[in-house]
Amino acid sequence: MAHISLREDLPGIVGLLAFRPETAQPLGVFTDALLQGPSPLSRAEREMIAAHVSFRNDCHFCRQSHAAVGAAHLGGREQDHALFEAVQFDPASALVSPKMKALLTIAGLVQRGGKTVTVEAIEAARREGASDVEIHDTVLIAAAFCMFNRYVDGLGTWQPDEPAAYRGMGQQIAEGGYALAGVRAGA
Amino acid sequence: MAHISLREDLPGIVGLLAFRPETAQPLGVFTDALLQGPSPLSRAEREMIAAHVSFRNDCHFCRQSHAAVGAAHLGGREQDHALFEAVQFDPASALVSPKMKALLTIAGLVQRGGKTVTVEAIEAARREGASDVEIHDTVLIAAAFCMFNRYVDGLGTWQPDEPAAYRGMGQQIAEGGYALAGVRAGA
Repeated sequence: MAHISLREDLPGIVGLLAFRPETAQPLGVFTDALLQGPSPLSRAEREMIAAHVSFRNDCHFCRQSHAAVGAAHLGGREQDHALFEAVQFDPASALVSPKMKALLTIAGLVQRGGKTVTVEAIEAARREGASDVEIHDTVLIAAAFCMFNRYVDGLGTWQPDEPAAYRGMGQQIAEGGYALAGVRAGA
Repeated sequence: MAHISLREDLPGIVGLLAFRPETAQPLGVFTDALLQGPSPLSRAEREMIAAHVSFRNDCHFCRQSHAAVGAAHLGGREQDHALFEAVQFDPASALVSPKMKALLTIAGLVQRGGKTVTVEAIEAARREGASDVEIHDTVLIAAAFCMFNRYVDGLGTWQPDEPAAYRGMGQQIAEGGYALAGVRAGA
């Protein structure tokens, strides 16, 4: 049971957005700017960072839902879902570019704490072609999921177990964005 | 030196906001909603949560700047600055209400991880009169500073040492809000 009174039919962050529309609205706009707005990183690449950090923070709802959004961006085939599973657990051996592996390493350091990011990790990403904006966006996305994961778990929200429960929501967000999903939750 | 090319005259998050206005704008609006928008917690109480979590995450820029904003909300006297120092290090013995102490305990748990928040900590806050919205806002503010702290430190930003450097900025934000401060930084 959640730590506060939330609508029981709305899982994870969706119930929290409906509970507090005053913060839900700007959070939705921020999330769209971060994950679907202009960036040299593709939408799928940004969802990889989100899913990996959420896995590291052991947030079931966030890792399943962002893996589902990311896989939907790639076409939603079984191999896309498998890729997003691999990226969560073991980015080093996942089928992603060397640049993406180096950025996921930075994201993993940010998850542990801001001060753990090393000059060596940044230089390794640059050697694979990462730009300043790509490094910036990686750090901000990883940091943002240290917020979302704590928000969702810190209030003890209800989270469906099975991955299939997240696929429909993932498809909807990939098409319509995060702000719209928040508005629907509140309606 | 910062991990990416930032304007050298802009400290902490201010340089990051100027570097990436696309995310700075919605972040500023979200921060205003969170820390200065409608809430049963006063603006000073919300800054206590921000400063305490930032201290726990060892983020010098954030703890100094949010302590300065919070002290400015109380009038900016030396005793207000002393209160915000105490709240960072040792909320249990600081001159705040029992309800605020219980909420700061929850914030400290959120800093460690969302799943560490216990039913006992929530019930202790309720016994001191905390409402669902106050508990919600405490968890979201604590979670948000796990983002801001990692953003500021994860990109290696420049951060002035001396507390005095933060007081002018604190006064300005207490009066004009966070979104405006971001716009000024980008201008």
